Amino acid sequence: MLSPSLEDYLEEIYRFSVSHDIVRVTDISQKLNVKLPSVTKAMGKLRAGGYITYQKYGVIGLTDKGRQTGGYLVERNTLLQEFLRTICADCDVAAEAEAMEHYLSKSTIVSIQRFTVFMKEHPAIYQRFVDYVQENKRINKER
Amino acid sequence: MLSPSLEDYLEEIYRFSVSHDIVRVTDISQKLNVKLPSVTKAMGKLRAGGYITYQKYGVIGLTDKGRQTGGYLVERNTLLQEFLRTICADCDVAAEAEAMEHYLSKSTIVSIQRFTVFMKEHPAIYQRFVDYVQENKRINKER
Repeated sequence: MLSPSLEDYLEEIYRFSVSHDIVRVTDISQKLNVKLPSVTKAMGKLRAGGYITYQKYGVIGLTDKGRQTGGYLVERNTLLQEFLRTICADCDVAAEAEAMEHYLSKSTIVSIQRFTVFMKEHPAIYQRFVDYVQENKRINKER
Repeated sequence: MLSPSLEDYLEEIYRFSVSHDIVRVTDISQKLNVKLPSVTKAMGKLRAGGYITYQKYGVIGLTDKGRQTGGYLVERNTLLQEFLRTICADCDVAAEAEAMEHYLSKSTIVSIQRFTVFMKEHPAIYQRFVDYVQENKRINKER
């Protein structure tokens, strides 16, 4: 099991690897706004876990395991943002997904995904829910 | 802001105070399965934050602020368990609610609550969702 912090690193490495040919420790350090020695330490742990290769000049490569896990982490984050939008949460969706993503079991992620897909596939039901939320917010404002 | 650990302590103190006239440090230590010195240290922090009074013989009292916050924490936990049941999550509902509760913003808690109330108030819609989940699980099992 990866710690929340290592999950964030792997998620960011995966994200960066999709749009860039080469991922360097300095890229991750900049992206996550974390100091280089901390990133290097985390990379050591990810390499020990078999998620990344770590070469000269700070070049990071993803192993198959790392690519698979990284892809899952990015999907999970996207899904949670979608879920929060679906329930019309008035939060900073990106920050909230980032805060909660590490603490949900896989089976709950599956359930949340099923719920968001259900709402997409049943637009009339979803519309009733959205109307309900709007009405509820309006009433609460008037109180 | 209380740390996740202090939230757990306060939640447990509140819960215990509902069913018992006197709450002692030893009760909380037993309930949460945490060693006495750790509990005592946490009690110091909760007292400093104005949530509890802490008297001779390890007797803990809740201040108004502590009772209000503790009540909210217990409600939040109950709500999250209800939400997980509503989306038919196949997880250990108590453990999962306990894991996620500290990381959700108040506004997301409100949204989740609105969603569970909507489903309660619209049993026909909820039935369609439950049927959808059952069907989905059946299909996945057959794969």
